[in-house]
Amino acid sequence: MTEAAPRRGRRPGAPDTRAAILAAARELFAAQGYAGTSVRSIAAAAGVDGSLVHHYFGTKDDLFVAALQLPVDPRERLADVIALGPDGAAERLLRVFLSVWDDPEFQLPLVGLARNLLDPSGQRLLTEGFLPAILHPVGVAMGVERPEVRMPLVASQVIGLILMRYVLAVEPIASMPTDDVVAIFAPTLQRYFTGPLP
Amino acid sequence: MTEAAPRRGRRPGAPDTRAAILAAARELFAAQGYAGTSVRSIAAAAGVDGSLVHHYFGTKDDLFVAALQLPVDPRERLADVIALGPDGAAERLLRVFLSVWDDPEFQLPLVGLARNLLDPSGQRLLTEGFLPAILHPVGVAMGVERPEVRMPLVASQVIGLILMRYVLAVEPIASMPTDDVVAIFAPTLQRYFTGPLP
Repeated sequence: MTEAAPRRGRRPGAPDTRAAILAAARELFAAQGYAGTSVRSIAAAAGVDGSLVHHYFGTKDDLFVAALQLPVDPRERLADVIALGPDGAAERLLRVFLSVWDDPEFQLPLVGLARNLLDPSGQRLLTEGFLPAILHPVGVAMGVERPEVRMPLVASQVIGLILMRYVLAVEPIASMPTDDVVAIFAPTLQRYFTGPLP
Repeated sequence: MTEAAPRRGRRPGAPDTRAAILAAARELFAAQGYAGTSVRSIAAAAGVDGSLVHHYFGTKDDLFVAALQLPVDPRERLADVIALGPDGAAERLLRVFLSVWDDPEFQLPLVGLARNLLDPSGQRLLTEGFLPAILHPVGVAMGVERPEVRMPLVASQVIGLILMRYVLAVEPIASMPTDDVVAIFAPTLQRYFTGPLP
């Protein structure tokens, strides 16, 4: 084991340790879900001390985001959306979402992730990882009422949009200009954020 | 080759012929899409005359529905929805949709189909088969304006609902009573059917 390096910045001495922790995290999160996986069990599987996991990756949430290998951290990108609260959140969310997914740098890895959505491990990463560990906290931080109902509704339309626009590439949604996507889908998402619920 | 039997009813003499046609249809539709597959090419692959394909299965659309192995024919189930036109269509569509998908007899085979949505063959069956050959004609028959835009929007939310409620089983959508699903999703679909477009 090399000496612990500063958490942010280069860690030239310990690429194997980081890689081993990440590999263990990906495997355990996919097999057991987010809630069923402890930092301790990831450390054990990687053969390192738990404190080293925290040292390299921060919290369990941070490690989960790292394990997802998302090209961007959705929590950072959504910081402004979260700060401004639920009123008008749909349009702001969609513009951030589209700026990331329509970016050639990010689109390919994101579509790759979305393609695995219906595989058993991809399904677990979504339902037991992304939704409770990322999407739900975004709703809570944003001040959405009844986020446990509203955020899955938001997800139902965003996932449908991702599949039609990026994965299945169904026209006219696949080639639709940003403003048209916002005009069509923002009212739907805004109703899910703040509209009446049964 | 056995003698042609009546199109509807039992065909005791020709199970192999029917099965060979269906197998060829499934393979070709999946490999080449709906538009790229002719009845003639299916007949050739099955080693039968084209007239026999029409005799057993009717039109190319009918054969496509048979090849999808849907537990129900969506065109029959949606006859009343189509007849009553786009006003109020969303609630009617959702109630038919839920009555089929929530039926234990149909749910398992339908979820099985939906699970293959992101495989290459499942993707083709959806984007080059189900959407142009079934969903689009439903919109046209219903009198939806600009069905080439509106029906893919409807599909984007229905697919998201299918994934969340049935395939990924995300709560509270998975266990939501029928009336709540209708109350939440019908306004979205109705807007896609008849609301403003950019």
